[in-house]
Amino acid sequence: MTTVAVDANGADLGPREVAEGAIAAGVDVLLFGPAAEIGEVPARVTVVDAPVSIAKEADPARAARSTPEASIVQAARAVAAGDADALVSAGSTGAALAAGLFEIRRARGIYRPALALPIPVPGKPVTLVDVGANTEVRSEHLVQFAFMGAALVRSVLGVERPRVALLSNGEEAVKGTPVVVEAHAALAARATTAFEWVGNVEGTQVTEGVADVIVADGFTGNVALKLIEGVSQTVLGAVRDAAMSSPRSKLGGLLLKPALRAFRDQIDPEAPGGAYRLGLRRLGVVPHGRFSRRGFANAITLAARAHDEDVVGRTHAALESAGALRSSPSEAPATVPPT
Amino acid sequence: MTTVAVDANGADLGPREVAEGAIAAGVDVLLFGPAAEIGEVPARVTVVDAPVSIAKEADPARAARSTPEASIVQAARAVAAGDADALVSAGSTGAALAAGLFEIRRARGIYRPALALPIPVPGKPVTLVDVGANTEVRSEHLVQFAFMGAALVRSVLGVERPRVALLSNGEEAVKGTPVVVEAHAALAARATTAFEWVGNVEGTQVTEGVADVIVADGFTGNVALKLIEGVSQTVLGAVRDAAMSSPRSKLGGLLLKPALRAFRDQIDPEAPGGAYRLGLRRLGVVPHGRFSRRGFANAITLAARAHDEDVVGRTHAALESAGALRSSPSEAPATVPPT
Repeated sequence: MTTVAVDANGADLGPREVAEGAIAAGVDVLLFGPAAEIGEVPARVTVVDAPVSIAKEADPARAARSTPEASIVQAARAVAAGDADALVSAGSTGAALAAGLFEIRRARGIYRPALALPIPVPGKPVTLVDVGANTEVRSEHLVQFAFMGAALVRSVLGVERPRVALLSNGEEAVKGTPVVVEAHAALAARATTAFEWVGNVEGTQVTEGVADVIVADGFTGNVALKLIEGVSQTVLGAVRDAAMSSPRSKLGGLLLKPALRAFRDQIDPEAPGGAYRLGLRRLGVVPHGRFSRRGFANAITLAARAHDEDVVGRTHAALESAGALRSSPSEAPATVPPT
Repeated sequence: MTTVAVDANGADLGPREVAEGAIAAGVDVLLFGPAAEIGEVPARVTVVDAPVSIAKEADPARAARSTPEASIVQAARAVAAGDADALVSAGSTGAALAAGLFEIRRARGIYRPALALPIPVPGKPVTLVDVGANTEVRSEHLVQFAFMGAALVRSVLGVERPRVALLSNGEEAVKGTPVVVEAHAALAARATTAFEWVGNVEGTQVTEGVADVIVADGFTGNVALKLIEGVSQTVLGAVRDAAMSSPRSKLGGLLLKPALRAFRDQIDPEAPGGAYRLGLRRLGVVPHGRFSRRGFANAITLAARAHDEDVVGRTHAALESAGALRSSPSEAPATVPPT
């Protein structure tokens, strides 16, 4: 049976909300957090009392190093030791990354861990990778992100041969920063069964369903992800305002409400469970701190599924057959990427 | 009387549509394009027969160099020679940039021309700069973009002291690429009357009205701009779909239609006239190729207004008093930035 290690600290709604997610998830959970606040749980959930939280630390990498008793560090250590198969931790992605790197270590042949986020665009889901782990990248990093994202989407979303694209400022192969242009050439040259290579996509195409995975450096990916959130909210807000602008519009808005609510449910950010930390020896999922139990349950369930589908092994095999593994060993203590 | 040089080639709807825009603009226009297709115009518009177009060339910089008879090159030359005060040219921004650089030259003390685009977010208009002229930048370029954008917004939109922000992957001063972090520090250190310094903004905040000008490198700015377009269309499409999902919803959609149309009018991309090419000795405006006469008329009117408001001189004065001018002379033939 698959076991997921979960940090109960870092959720805005508190440790009990995370526990409710763990209870609802339906897999075995090791839950690290303040036992007194967590309260009663069924037998499938094992609570490890770990009241110290570093979720809000300004320098998460330093905090992870200097606070071995922190719940996130203990949870990561449980995964590293083989007591659990995957890690779920909300709050600072920096802390999770730092703890993940120190305790779980990079997978063999991987240059840099990355964060992937499946965005629930209705009928056209798209996974962005990297959404913030690596502010600066080299082209070989972007190449690996493509394979990592493809393996994730296949494992978690069941897309047999994901379509993979590179985010750029134009569709032509020559468009983009030198790093993007280089990555484009490298990806185009590596015919693979792991994914279908789409080429460059522009910002207009991100939510148009032309690719299942879109690759970017962590700076651009983070800006893109947050723009999608912000612009969606702005436009939906404007529709709401339009529906309040006259008695006629109000009636129209009222009649339209159930259909719009269905749309809102479809773009529920809690549905994909959070961001997926790829490139370590074990998968990590990072729910947003504001998620409810529903989001935490999804994160835990999907982390277990990705483990069962062997997303790490699948990534390695695909990178190996494409000749895109890092050649030097990655055993050395990893440097923490900028967060 | 202010005169605007306009390239009639490069519009999807053809040269006559551009001529209609020139006629509607209400300022003196030198119109370069195929006289036979342009047809009759009133006295305020002077047609210069220039049938050769390089708007669709794959390598616009090379085309601009090797095709002195091209309409865009002739239009740029007219501005450089002082026969016109500003340049309006649709089609390839690359060709416009190349022609602009060769013929009009950079303004004194400016490192790099940049493209600024005013985005008509209802009630919260925001101008992005750079949206594609400079794929890679140094921090001193971003600093200048801030001053250039502020001067534009003051001249064209009448915002007395624009709020200026830097696009990053986090609000904290330490967030971003090294170039962004450096630019943040440089901008924070330069108290100026030219604008109010907001600091970093994330993607979620771009359409929230927290800044009048948002600065980014041309790669990120271009991705951001196109994401705003794409996500707006996706969400509005989903609302339309929701309004077709049941008889009840259909009635609701029908009642809401006028209010939603008003919203669509507010986000009309033709309203701001296009992208503004800043940093040359004369202002340029680049309407989108798909614009109608309305967009061209706006581009020509606003180009004239920006000239009358002395956006170039204002930028120079603000940069000078902030000590942010480039010290070496910019008289040498400029290199063409990547497009």
